[in-house]
Amino acid sequence: MAFTTKATITTFGGRLLKLSHESPTTGTPMNLNLFIPPTATTASPAPLLVYLSGLTCTPDNVTEKGFLHAHASRLGLALLFPDTSPRGLDLPGEHESWDFGSAASFYVDAARDPWRRHYRMESYVTRELPALVFQTFPELDPSRVSISGHSMGGHGALTLYMKHPGMYKSVSAWAPIANPSRCPWGEKAFGGYLGDDKEEWKKHDATELVKAWKGPLNCLIDVGTGDNFYKQGQLLPENFEQAVKDAGVEGLTLRYQEGYDHSYFFISTFGEDHVKHAAKFLGLRQ
Amino acid sequence: MAFTTKATITTFGGRLLKLSHESPTTGTPMNLNLFIPPTATTASPAPLLVYLSGLTCTPDNVTEKGFLHAHASRLGLALLFPDTSPRGLDLPGEHESWDFGSAASFYVDAARDPWRRHYRMESYVTRELPALVFQTFPELDPSRVSISGHSMGGHGALTLYMKHPGMYKSVSAWAPIANPSRCPWGEKAFGGYLGDDKEEWKKHDATELVKAWKGPLNCLIDVGTGDNFYKQGQLLPENFEQAVKDAGVEGLTLRYQEGYDHSYFFISTFGEDHVKHAAKFLGLRQ
Repeated sequence: MAFTTKATITTFGGRLLKLSHESPTTGTPMNLNLFIPPTATTASPAPLLVYLSGLTCTPDNVTEKGFLHAHASRLGLALLFPDTSPRGLDLPGEHESWDFGSAASFYVDAARDPWRRHYRMESYVTRELPALVFQTFPELDPSRVSISGHSMGGHGALTLYMKHPGMYKSVSAWAPIANPSRCPWGEKAFGGYLGDDKEEWKKHDATELVKAWKGPLNCLIDVGTGDNFYKQGQLLPENFEQAVKDAGVEGLTLRYQEGYDHSYFFISTFGEDHVKHAAKFLGLRQ
Repeated sequence: MAFTTKATITTFGGRLLKLSHESPTTGTPMNLNLFIPPTATTASPAPLLVYLSGLTCTPDNVTEKGFLHAHASRLGLALLFPDTSPRGLDLPGEHESWDFGSAASFYVDAARDPWRRHYRMESYVTRELPALVFQTFPELDPSRVSISGHSMGGHGALTLYMKHPGMYKSVSAWAPIANPSRCPWGEKAFGGYLGDDKEEWKKHDATELVKAWKGPLNCLIDVGTGDNFYKQGQLLPENFEQAVKDAGVEGLTLRYQEGYDHSYFFISTFGEDHVKHAAKFLGLRQ
């Protein structure tokens, strides 16, 4: 299914496209934003950084408040902002809480009814969406893709990176839910989407997945020390860090940023670092 | 009246304060945001750039979407984001249209009832608010202030700059309403706030005020050629430019930016240029 272009906006010299399409994977319309830097051409296609948003967000929040495109434009990097869940459904309980259902997919393919038919965000993000993007935009390079995300999207980025070795050249996350099997958000989401078998949960938990990772991790993580969700134990980056150490995995840079919270003011502050991290692994000159 | 601090947010190394206070000038509570760069100290106070927002906005829009504090932090500049009108009133017709009344003060002191008692935004922005800010924050320098704004706020910046010579070291505007006496927005606002005497309107119209300006203008203006309000004749920067030429005034840089619209994607793209413009006149190293 082709994209419908809802808006084309000139910003930082590039093109920001607000797109929608009918997704066979989710069985719903899906919205996304795509930033194409001014240097991208069919003859010299731009690499792509996928950014997965956090709970409650649409693709518009980071597009308007993250300023990632300011840096991506300068470096010649395209940015893809998928939505956080299918839209337009009315499944039982789907819209009742902000941390489950709509805008809270956790980027898994759900195994339980009624979610499993539509909540297939892992397949959507890793297969359908990039295929359609690269088919539609020959000025983007399908061989050079990295992934990043914030909070629930940081969980998504870390897990999809490790579940699909070779698909992404690097990964980064702001305040990721780094051990969802052991925090209230993750327990609720995994129980609801995947069921009660905690062995299944491990397949979608960055702290578990990294135990089997081979090679360098190519990973940058920032966490704000003033982040209430970090303080409440929803993020648990320390568990991820420990698992990385225990597994002898190289290539994790985890930084605690003094006083920063969980908001887009935090994301935008360190956006340049995350864009440069991806650019480095995607072969762009800094 | 002292400020109430509603939030303190760490961003780009500085402090973003969401403040409110009871204003004797407007007789209402007033909200504002203030960004203080990390270098500001009582011993070495930072200069201040005032940014006036456009129609429909609160101080939060530009704070979240303008990205000005990224550049201000690096250069050592503080940013003050006042509100676009008094709040908390229910005057007849105040909330009926988006281009008059609440969030649409046009930064004048109204002369007509029922507006004149509360809609005194020129006095608020030029007198009460800076006095309170500099009294409360000794790390800001009251002798080094510039002004800027977007759309209706660009009108506000240009007119307050010229109505109060010496108060501001420079001025800049994104897509300003540059000749409000001759556009539908301005005619509605000035008729409503000031009355039918068009000689009075001239005292609040940048294109009229510049005819009497002495000295350099120290002014940067950007307008997007894809801006629908520009195309509709609401902005009329060409009238301002012609008046500047006719008056033999130096120091206007007016740029037409190909394809840009009226949105915060336009503001943020050229934010660095506007912050640097102010910084230059405020004695900061680039």
